Amino acid sequence: MTDSSQEHHYTENVQEHLKQVEALLHKHALLEEVIHRQQLPRDDRHALLDTLAHKQHIAELQRKLDGMHPADIACILEALPIEQRLLVWELVKSENDGEILIEVSDAVRESLIEAMSREELREATEQLDTDEIADLAPDLPQNVIRDVFKSLPIGEREQLRTAMSYEEDSVGALMDFNMVHVREDVTLEVVSRYLRRFEELPDHTDQVFVVDRNEKFKGVLPINLVVVNEPEDIVGDLMLTDIIQLHPDDKADMAAQAFERYDLVSAPVVDEDGKLFGRVTVNVVLDFIREESDTELLNFAGLLEEEDIFASVWKSAQNRWTWLALNLCTAFFASRVIGAFEGTIAKFVALAALMPIVAGIAGNSANQTTTIIIRALALGQISHENARRLFFKELAISGLNGLVWGGVAGLFAYFLYHNVPLGIVMTGAMVLNLMVAATVGLGIPLVMQKLGRDPAIGSSVMITAITDSGGFFIFLGLATIFLL
Amino acid sequence: MTDSSQEHHYTENVQEHLKQVEALLHKHALLEEVIHRQQLPRDDRHALLDTLAHKQHIAELQRKLDGMHPADIACILEALPIEQRLLVWELVKSENDGEILIEVSDAVRESLIEAMSREELREATEQLDTDEIADLAPDLPQNVIRDVFKSLPIGEREQLRTAMSYEEDSVGALMDFNMVHVREDVTLEVVSRYLRRFEELPDHTDQVFVVDRNEKFKGVLPINLVVVNEPEDIVGDLMLTDIIQLHPDDKADMAAQAFERYDLVSAPVVDEDGKLFGRVTVNVVLDFIREESDTELLNFAGLLEEEDIFASVWKSAQNRWTWLALNLCTAFFASRVIGAFEGTIAKFVALAALMPIVAGIAGNSANQTTTIIIRALALGQISHENARRLFFKELAISGLNGLVWGGVAGLFAYFLYHNVPLGIVMTGAMVLNLMVAATVGLGIPLVMQKLGRDPAIGSSVMITAITDSGGFFIFLGLATIFLL
Repeated sequence: MTDSSQEHHYTENVQEHLKQVEALLHKHALLEEVIHRQQLPRDDRHALLDTLAHKQHIAELQRKLDGMHPADIACILEALPIEQRLLVWELVKSENDGEILIEVSDAVRESLIEAMSREELREATEQLDTDEIADLAPDLPQNVIRDVFKSLPIGEREQLRTAMSYEEDSVGALMDFNMVHVREDVTLEVVSRYLRRFEELPDHTDQVFVVDRNEKFKGVLPINLVVVNEPEDIVGDLMLTDIIQLHPDDKADMAAQAFERYDLVSAPVVDEDGKLFGRVTVNVVLDFIREESDTELLNFAGLLEEEDIFASVWKSAQNRWTWLALNLCTAFFASRVIGAFEGTIAKFVALAALMPIVAGIAGNSANQTTTIIIRALALGQISHENARRLFFKELAISGLNGLVWGGVAGLFAYFLYHNVPLGIVMTGAMVLNLMVAATVGLGIPLVMQKLGRDPAIGSSVMITAITDSGGFFIFLGLATIFLL
Repeated sequence: MTDSSQEHHYTENVQEHLKQVEALLHKHALLEEVIHRQQLPRDDRHALLDTLAHKQHIAELQRKLDGMHPADIACILEALPIEQRLLVWELVKSENDGEILIEVSDAVRESLIEAMSREELREATEQLDTDEIADLAPDLPQNVIRDVFKSLPIGEREQLRTAMSYEEDSVGALMDFNMVHVREDVTLEVVSRYLRRFEELPDHTDQVFVVDRNEKFKGVLPINLVVVNEPEDIVGDLMLTDIIQLHPDDKADMAAQAFERYDLVSAPVVDEDGKLFGRVTVNVVLDFIREESDTELLNFAGLLEEEDIFASVWKSAQNRWTWLALNLCTAFFASRVIGAFEGTIAKFVALAALMPIVAGIAGNSANQTTTIIIRALALGQISHENARRLFFKELAISGLNGLVWGGVAGLFAYFLYHNVPLGIVMTGAMVLNLMVAATVGLGIPLVMQKLGRDPAIGSSVMITAITDSGGFFIFLGLATIFLL
């Protein structure tokens, strides 16, 4: 913490905040326990809970929360177990409720919304912009949405309906309606006077949008150009037209890539008639990118979605079951492949000890290939032309890896069991299964992309299933042919 | 593509561009091949290569490249095989060389730099800002850096030296020096006049920084406030002081979290004496976040670093070896665990077919736990207090999963082999190994964090090693005790 009370010093901010909130909650809990232990009659206990000390802790906690940024409160709420989370949520200034609900993760939002009355939810929601309400809407009870909808002015109702109509991964879902627009035939002087009529400009207004009388989008005028040019200059002479226009149905990740590549702060969204429709800002893109990459990682690890770390055991287990069940099925299959060779294993038990090596290394190698391909696919770098070259390259790497690491594994087998053919079978199986790994590691994401599915989701399970079963089959098969 | 040639329509831009570039390269290659096939003497072939058709293709390609944004060219370069990449790189306007070198991935940058002369490199580097030169420096030959350093004015030399001195994951490495500053006692009129002296403001100037006569940082003045307020207002009355100040030695990911939470476009960097030192902008943060999450994913998949998809087989193999070698070691260890029970397996071959199930599911479950914990650690949401609760929660989930999926696996074993004790051993081993999985899945990242290491790197290998060996040991051990 720095000396000036004016600054939020951010470094390890949240951890610091979390510790302090936990300490206050702890004092509060201790007091409650003391009262509880004394086995007083119910009414007296309630009276005691109203004591000065108790009130003090609560007041202190409330003061602490009042000084925190809503995004930090959201982070603290995520880090607290349910009962403490709801206690803190009660104490948060209600004018921040809406923003905090937007900031918390989906899983935690659910737990907060459950604890709120219809009235509280309506009030929280009404603090938000229409695009934010649309983000929140899927988690809100139907009757709350109806209430909120009725309370909106006609224009905003239309916006809300529009915002809610877009798919989650489209530009429409990232878009907001807080754009400032001007005409191209006016001077900067006029623009300045117009802007001065705002108390403040919408967040992330790095540019105003230039439209004609029919709201057709003409170009953008960066605020910085308003600032560095002379008041008598004309908007039309200064505005930029060679810029990116998004469309509400575009894929959100394409828009995110545009923000990354061209270092944008905001970008216009234009409908099919060329009318200015909304804008996308970099803060939303940042959140989107973070969410996307989290999803990818969660998926890689076999989780359906982000988890509230303090969700009930039952809820958490459900988040993990789909993938575990899928894995169990593939494991059963691999087990049956081994079962088919029980006769071979009975005669040569060493095979049982060696077979997981063949399966494991290939699984690892296939995941390396897939990860590189998925990344290149996401960047649009895979073409018909280079896919073939990549395939041969990955096969070559596999061959090399097979000879090197398969060789090491073969020596390992030979030194343990003093059996030359066993060592050769081991190396051969490694080479072959690594080739299988390269083929599926490259092929599965490409096929999924062709079928219009997200190659980042589910590729890993399929690939591991194939390298496992394939590894067992190849190794035990070769052993059956050459060692018996 | 839209009708107006003025717009870069971004959707699937790069894929479109890539296709066109590839088509042009293809024509070029065909022509060369025709000439080659005709077995002409060397000089005649060169003459032919200078033919009109050939020149036309090259000119067409060059025109195409001239119309592209440097970031898009960077992406195309990454997607081309080496020889074609270098041909395109030759054709790129040299005034864009610097920016493109900054934009391409580390791996591809290496291949481009190798193809450039010392003179070309010097020219490319001199187009860049000092903070960008510092980013490029680790990949440049020593003598080029010396040349560039000498050509810089004194002030910028100091900046370059400073920028190069920061660790890669610190705020200092993200920082640039392109900030505009003003004094707090002047009017907006004066600020406006000052700003009008710039041709254009530095990119991402959403605010100017307010400093005193000793360069001490006092606050920020958003450009939007300059625009909406009256010319006679005083900077000191309008400036914001309750804002985040970064320090050059702060961790970059803390800064990134601040940008995400507080929706920043730029933030001041202040040294230990409170002097304004530089600034961080959101575009750099966006790239940092993307790189971080890519690294995490690559790591999860067992790759050392981002790979040039067209790197030589030899180079790619090296990128993948560390992890494969590590995996091979843990696989050898697991193999020896199985080896210790060869006697048991010889008497009861079914065990060999069933044991991978026990190991696999636990590995999967452990990775689920780890992923959730690593995410929470990164957000600073794990405290001493809640770590214990999380541990018990994860154990409970494991117990539940063990009973459910272990039960299913037990039934699977029973129905296959008609052996009740085998089924019970199977279920018991699953429950126990899932408990092990929860313990290491939670414990390993926490311990790594405690030791000051990045829990996202290497956790996965260790965890799988333990759940594999542990699974074999528990299952075969129980079988030895209860089934023989």
